[in-house]
Amino acid sequence: MAKPFTISCPTPATSSEFVALAHGGGGRLMHQLLEQYVIPAFRNDLLEARHDGAVLDLGNTRLAFTTDSYVVHPLFFPGGDIGTLAVNGTVNDLAMCGARPLALSAAFIVEEGLPFSTLQRVIDSMSRAAREAGVQIVTGDTKVVDRGKGDGLFVNTAGVGVVEHGLVIAPGRVRAGDSILLSGDVGRHGVAIMAVRQGLEFETTIETDCAPLAAPVLAVLEAGIEIHCLRDLTRGGLATGLIEIAESSRLHIDIVEQEIVVEENVRGACEILGLDPLYLANEGRFIAFVPENGAVRALEIMRQHAVSCAAQRIGSVSETPASLVTLESRIGTRRILDMHSGEQLPRIC
Amino acid sequence: MAKPFTISCPTPATSSEFVALAHGGGGRLMHQLLEQYVIPAFRNDLLEARHDGAVLDLGNTRLAFTTDSYVVHPLFFPGGDIGTLAVNGTVNDLAMCGARPLALSAAFIVEEGLPFSTLQRVIDSMSRAAREAGVQIVTGDTKVVDRGKGDGLFVNTAGVGVVEHGLVIAPGRVRAGDSILLSGDVGRHGVAIMAVRQGLEFETTIETDCAPLAAPVLAVLEAGIEIHCLRDLTRGGLATGLIEIAESSRLHIDIVEQEIVVEENVRGACEILGLDPLYLANEGRFIAFVPENGAVRALEIMRQHAVSCAAQRIGSVSETPASLVTLESRIGTRRILDMHSGEQLPRIC
Repeated sequence: MAKPFTISCPTPATSSEFVALAHGGGGRLMHQLLEQYVIPAFRNDLLEARHDGAVLDLGNTRLAFTTDSYVVHPLFFPGGDIGTLAVNGTVNDLAMCGARPLALSAAFIVEEGLPFSTLQRVIDSMSRAAREAGVQIVTGDTKVVDRGKGDGLFVNTAGVGVVEHGLVIAPGRVRAGDSILLSGDVGRHGVAIMAVRQGLEFETTIETDCAPLAAPVLAVLEAGIEIHCLRDLTRGGLATGLIEIAESSRLHIDIVEQEIVVEENVRGACEILGLDPLYLANEGRFIAFVPENGAVRALEIMRQHAVSCAAQRIGSVSETPASLVTLESRIGTRRILDMHSGEQLPRIC
Repeated sequence: MAKPFTISCPTPATSSEFVALAHGGGGRLMHQLLEQYVIPAFRNDLLEARHDGAVLDLGNTRLAFTTDSYVVHPLFFPGGDIGTLAVNGTVNDLAMCGARPLALSAAFIVEEGLPFSTLQRVIDSMSRAAREAGVQIVTGDTKVVDRGKGDGLFVNTAGVGVVEHGLVIAPGRVRAGDSILLSGDVGRHGVAIMAVRQGLEFETTIETDCAPLAAPVLAVLEAGIEIHCLRDLTRGGLATGLIEIAESSRLHIDIVEQEIVVEENVRGACEILGLDPLYLANEGRFIAFVPENGAVRALEIMRQHAVSCAAQRIGSVSETPASLVTLESRIGTRRILDMHSGEQLPRIC
């Protein structure tokens, strides 16, 4: 593999004084925003772990705590809506802490003039998604902003869950030799949103993969497999998730393109639209870093759950070149995966 | 007192099909929205307690969990900003569950084009407020929406805290004979926002009362006083807080106007602006319902804390007329306090 292994960061097309859409995209610009403004101000160990949620020690209980706001546009799309996203997204962030999700909050920022029927539909989706994920929505808030000062509806959920094992699951626990397991095909959520936004039609409707991920994660943990790290593949997709973990752990991640499933219609849509499925957001996919000797058993367990029935071992971790992700292509060449500055599709979740 | 004791609800100036600004105001319309859409869909005991937060039983730990979004306009005002509100508001909701606040999440919805300097100022405020309240901001999220689809900055915080006593503090625990304690003067936050929004100037600047309330609440609990109910007096103010509790507990609340402190400049501003200070939002005031025999001691303890140094006993609870709040005026007459349909000032928090 040729040197130099520097990470190229495309120059952002944005002024340095104002927030741009790309700062919310999960890529390099969002990282800069977090590193420059958020993390230094709130400085504490939990935030610095740069994980999907925080794990708090409450005497005898280890509590996972996380939040996300949802600003997806449009509110409704094939296979889901902002409500299913808001529930599953936060349930999944808890699952990525290795926690059993318990309860969510739901906070609505409604733009004046939103039809009540829209609000009702979203709330019904949230209720259904919460039931399916086995969590309760126990507290909430509603604010209304003037017409033209919002975009119909934004939803925030926060979640709490309990960590019932002794492991610390975080990027810093990844070790050379770990296997990387991917829970299923990638790219569907991103393409589903893009298609409805652009009014594109394909032979078959591409639906979001939005789904709760706690069940397979907890099953792997209950089997005693020592998971080192978990990450759901939302903004920035598989590639960005891997790059974040390679950078945090200062290890080298090598993945094999052939093992990464992209459905035929998703691949076709990506070719037409000029999108890279490895960078597209998913809302029901995760990667797990496990010791090599637990990989086969973990895969077996994941495949027993519908949401991760197509799980694959997609690569492994080694010492060097540190902080890099490489992809072995179908024709056997290797290339470095760079973090994009923003997101291919803004407001994807 | 003359009959009938029906509650008059002013006819809302809104279509029944679309959400209006007043639905976010904390008054009758917001209650209708919650009762009609939110609570039936998410039905569970914790939500039905209609409290500021939920208390979850996690084996050996009782966990309080709450959330609020902040959409205050403008972002900065005398004595505070959206950041101080976002921290203290959620800290206070935890305190109103009788919990010791532990950790917050912080989720930002940024409108494209917001100056980074604005974001920095808000984040610094949050950091300072968190330090003062003794909580950590441990997890978060950032989303960016297109120009014209937001209003600069919305902030959501969720919070977790531990309940270290065996009491259940909720509207349903209020009893006839309880004393009602108010922690200080009312109306300052509402007038501070209104003044800056309208460009009004008074002889002295009226500052928000925004402050963390956990310390006096925990001190009263630690003294062994059996608090029955707590409520911070945000949207809808003192009057709406009392009416909610009277309706939930189906008891009669009688308060004495003379005992309710309204600062001279706040009273003057209210007269000019046609506002009722009893309905104005506060961000650092609460009411406590305590058994008569604990009232004097509770007041003493509250007065030892700067944030509640002007605490007063403002009234008491009796059996009938059920579900009503009455106010004994300065000239000795009694009138019923009705819940407004919306809020005198939209986007106050």
